[in-house]
Amino acid sequence: MKKEIKFSLVFRDMWQSAGKYVPRVDQLTRVAPAIIEMGCFARVETNGGGFEQVNLLFGENPNKAVREWTKPFHEAGIQTHMLDRALNGLRMSPVPADVRQLFYKVKKAQGTDITRTFCGLNDIRNIAPSIQYAHDAGMISQCSLCITHSPIHTVEYYTNMALELIKLGADEICIKDMAGIGRPHSLGQIVANIKAKHPDIVIQYHSHAGPGFNVASILEVCKAGCDYIDVGMEPLSWGTGHADLLTVQAMLKDAGFKVPEINMQAYMKVRNMIQEFMDDFLGLYISPKNRLMNSLLIGPGLPGGMMGSLMADLEKNLESINKSKAKKNEPLMTQDELLIKLFDEVAYVWPRVGYPPLVTPFSQYVKNLALMNVMQMEKGKERWSMIADDIWDMILGKAGRLPGTLAPEIIEKAKLEGREFFTGNPQDNYPDALDKYRKLMNEKQWETGEDDEELFEYAMHPAQYETYRSGKAKVEFKADVAQRKAKAKTPAKTETTIAPATSLPTTPQIMTVDVNGQQYRVTVAFGDTTTITAPAQTEVPIASPIPSNAAGVGNEVLSPLEGKFFLVKNASDAPLKVGDAVKKDQILCYVEAMKTYNAVRSEFEGTITAICANPGDSVSEDDVLMKIQ
Amino acid sequence: MKKEIKFSLVFRDMWQSAGKYVPRVDQLTRVAPAIIEMGCFARVETNGGGFEQVNLLFGENPNKAVREWTKPFHEAGIQTHMLDRALNGLRMSPVPADVRQLFYKVKKAQGTDITRTFCGLNDIRNIAPSIQYAHDAGMISQCSLCITHSPIHTVEYYTNMALELIKLGADEICIKDMAGIGRPHSLGQIVANIKAKHPDIVIQYHSHAGPGFNVASILEVCKAGCDYIDVGMEPLSWGTGHADLLTVQAMLKDAGFKVPEINMQAYMKVRNMIQEFMDDFLGLYISPKNRLMNSLLIGPGLPGGMMGSLMADLEKNLESINKSKAKKNEPLMTQDELLIKLFDEVAYVWPRVGYPPLVTPFSQYVKNLALMNVMQMEKGKERWSMIADDIWDMILGKAGRLPGTLAPEIIEKAKLEGREFFTGNPQDNYPDALDKYRKLMNEKQWETGEDDEELFEYAMHPAQYETYRSGKAKVEFKADVAQRKAKAKTPAKTETTIAPATSLPTTPQIMTVDVNGQQYRVTVAFGDTTTITAPAQTEVPIASPIPSNAAGVGNEVLSPLEGKFFLVKNASDAPLKVGDAVKKDQILCYVEAMKTYNAVRSEFEGTITAICANPGDSVSEDDVLMKIQ
Repeated sequence: MKKEIKFSLVFRDMWQSAGKYVPRVDQLTRVAPAIIEMGCFARVETNGGGFEQVNLLFGENPNKAVREWTKPFHEAGIQTHMLDRALNGLRMSPVPADVRQLFYKVKKAQGTDITRTFCGLNDIRNIAPSIQYAHDAGMISQCSLCITHSPIHTVEYYTNMALELIKLGADEICIKDMAGIGRPHSLGQIVANIKAKHPDIVIQYHSHAGPGFNVASILEVCKAGCDYIDVGMEPLSWGTGHADLLTVQAMLKDAGFKVPEINMQAYMKVRNMIQEFMDDFLGLYISPKNRLMNSLLIGPGLPGGMMGSLMADLEKNLESINKSKAKKNEPLMTQDELLIKLFDEVAYVWPRVGYPPLVTPFSQYVKNLALMNVMQMEKGKERWSMIADDIWDMILGKAGRLPGTLAPEIIEKAKLEGREFFTGNPQDNYPDALDKYRKLMNEKQWETGEDDEELFEYAMHPAQYETYRSGKAKVEFKADVAQRKAKAKTPAKTETTIAPATSLPTTPQIMTVDVNGQQYRVTVAFGDTTTITAPAQTEVPIASPIPSNAAGVGNEVLSPLEGKFFLVKNASDAPLKVGDAVKKDQILCYVEAMKTYNAVRSEFEGTITAICANPGDSVSEDDVLMKIQ
Repeated sequence: MKKEIKFSLVFRDMWQSAGKYVPRVDQLTRVAPAIIEMGCFARVETNGGGFEQVNLLFGENPNKAVREWTKPFHEAGIQTHMLDRALNGLRMSPVPADVRQLFYKVKKAQGTDITRTFCGLNDIRNIAPSIQYAHDAGMISQCSLCITHSPIHTVEYYTNMALELIKLGADEICIKDMAGIGRPHSLGQIVANIKAKHPDIVIQYHSHAGPGFNVASILEVCKAGCDYIDVGMEPLSWGTGHADLLTVQAMLKDAGFKVPEINMQAYMKVRNMIQEFMDDFLGLYISPKNRLMNSLLIGPGLPGGMMGSLMADLEKNLESINKSKAKKNEPLMTQDELLIKLFDEVAYVWPRVGYPPLVTPFSQYVKNLALMNVMQMEKGKERWSMIADDIWDMILGKAGRLPGTLAPEIIEKAKLEGREFFTGNPQDNYPDALDKYRKLMNEKQWETGEDDEELFEYAMHPAQYETYRSGKAKVEFKADVAQRKAKAKTPAKTETTIAPATSLPTTPQIMTVDVNGQQYRVTVAFGDTTTITAPAQTEVPIASPIPSNAAGVGNEVLSPLEGKFFLVKNASDAPLKVGDAVKKDQILCYVEAMKTYNAVRSEFEGTITAICANPGDSVSEDDVLMKIQ
């Protein structure tokens, strides 16, 4: 008998790996019947990941959205699944245990059948409670192996991890190849090993197309016994997205697997609606570059989706390096030379910080560490001379156990800076919080909702939930869409029209005009208009009251690197200000570069006499940030 | 011992599957040392396909280009290969036997080691002489299986074809998966079957990324014993291009194959130069859409590279269908409905015209036939009521033997129209021509060149060679580049600048101006300028002397479809004109639509009294084209 392969449409991830958002609930409920009609999906990824949070950002109720969107699939006998970040739940920071527990109850009640749990560090301690919580709530617990490619992330490593998860009670295993850098042959072996021990355990392969391995990987894992394949659909497949349903189905059919047929009439309906949603507003948040494949980062092991930001970082830092080289009369560096140095440094750094899987945020951390090291060394400073606080947290074990061992040079560096390693269970640092949020809701006279779902959302995304409840989220979202639409319109117009008349400015202009040979400098409005008003003032952000480059006496606090300046809040939760007393080694401010916040600590005890930049200002290396006396 | 896989960089095809051109010889000789330095290529595709022709279009000597570009590889021990179209040689139409024979001698002398011969119909009669010619010239003859996916293009079909080619003397077999629609498992089986009979025959797999199968196919063919894999390089890999070297190398290494290491310093140099060449002028001819993957056409079997032109065709024809539906008060059709009808019609048409492999030009023919059928039927006319002449040529066997059998309805249609099937060897229709060209060169006092290479080029591309020799090609090419550069600049500028002042027209404008409350209608120049000149007249193409919509008496000849109008040359090689006598069924003119020329025949015997369109004019269905009395 032919081995059957079933498909899951990762509708949620399709959108979120292309851009920031997912469709609105009215759009989702419109497309759901057509997805069902396609007749080829056993599962659909409906929510989890950023889904709930995005609904809050829209000013929509995520609980309503999940209930309405999962319902038709449920009725059609299609299983729904969601992505959950284990310790981090549905956000990017750790979640108290009682909130995590409520999470599964709420999602089960809302109609999600399967929870796909992963820890970005593959720390099983972070995943274990989710298995129990999922079971208590009546959900299927699918546990993930986060795939990265390193000397320690071997077939054996992943096989053992899967066996451990199964021992802990995982119902299914997800091979989560989220950067698409898993190698086809090795992935097949992992699946074969798991199936050899547990022939009945369900295995689902999730991948992204990026570096181009994943179609081959799909064939290999299927040959090894995989049961479900995650697929995407045009116009959102490939690139940073997933392998396309049509390709996967045709390939597996040819290879002798039993695969469902696709209702192409319904397929066209869905495809069409995806395009319609993009044209509505979702396309405003999608970069066309995300449809491109990328192989360049295979060598260093970084996810291809990082290419855009990496090149931007390089450009900026190259300028800074070459400024420094020019001063010293040294030959300038090319972007390629810097890129190769960066790749070499990633190869140096990654093993030494314990091989965290190269996925967000850890891939960013490793890249930033490497780039920072290259920068510092090019300027004659030491390697590791700047490590951002959030990177330290990862190194110290606060997010979980690192897969590899830290290099002695890193351990020594931590000791020198008086940083303590954390070996306990990360969950223990976050005490239960539901009572607090229940009390808050009571005070605000907010309902905790059906199945306590409102309580859950509040506790999971407190700030965003409040913004949603206040109505501010919807206003801000709408304003952002309107602004992007206006911006998108301008270049589109000038691109499609050649005639000069249509590209004329809509506001009056000052120009040189010749009237009967006599030249005047006048204000001109375009077209036949009777009243001319003065050009509108360009809107500029209102500066904060902090004086820029203010005078002041005392020791100068210099910026350690180029980036954006941010102030630290003081004890009374207001930004530090002139007159505040500071201690030695106290964090004064941050300079944000490449998505990490680099703390600037005081070398002196004293009083702030001047703050020389506004929050959000761009500062250069060695710019004076503050003065302390 | 590990099985070794060697790589070929298809440098020629990389460019030509992205756009129209290849780099100039000065660029090629600059990049060659860096390609060699990469240390991972056993072969490089240097020329053939459109390479020689493109050099003529540049106004450069293709013989000089091939000699200079193959030389460094030769010296480095890297084999060079070229693509050859069997009967069609280096062009799109059949080539006399003596020119074909000289072709291999010239290319061998110029430094090409291997000739990859293919016939788009997989007709071995078209390939056979090339094997002999290649051997006579001392070249390695690599013969191709053109991969398409149909019920008759089975593993057995391709296995038998390969065995026949080997029997005829082919030194190597190329699995030419030029639309990337070969299914990985089946391709592996083809290779395994060939290797089972001929363990020592060299097999090279060539593919394009388009629908996303090819990385999986590469793994499958390598497991089955394939020896060489064709790869591309960023920024020209993926999409309509090839699988990326970095991906293929990493995948095969993981799967236990012996693969060469890549010198990444040299890789970056090559990558950088490719980008530099694109920025120079080649990018002007490359659509960014060619970097996208495309799976939608897998169902109908059409190559994904056709997507752009297909959607353009659909849009145009949809309008025409809906005009006709609106007249009849029938409900209008959506683009998706038309697309699905087209796919269904391709499924109907393709078997009935004998399953020509769906590659250029045959994929275009099948698509056009299908679309034409849909159009005609939607308008209440009959299926097959319009078949273009070049499609008839394919059906009648003039290009070679069709792989499948024609449907009775097609055979009957041919008989009805009095069209004769051709069962002979297509080559026999084209008598030797070298003497003619030698004589012409003698008359013009042109040298036949080293190894008769100039004679060969003249005989292969007569018109283009003359344009090159006259110097006109270079002038036209430079003008085209300049025009595209100017056009490319305009939108780029407006896209990157927001300030209205920079998007102002550069020519003076007529506007309403208010000076001290008094309004004037004046001419305005933007900026501080002292002289105002009148706006330049927009350039319009000069109309030919043929009267548009001219009066005239007699029977009207109507356009059978929407398209571009072209006149037929008469007996004395001048375009048909008013006053010419015409017979019944004589071809009067062509209407070009979707890259095929549809002949319009006279239903009457008489004299042309009016020609109602200029050559190149767009005409609508039922427009009057001529009048005949």
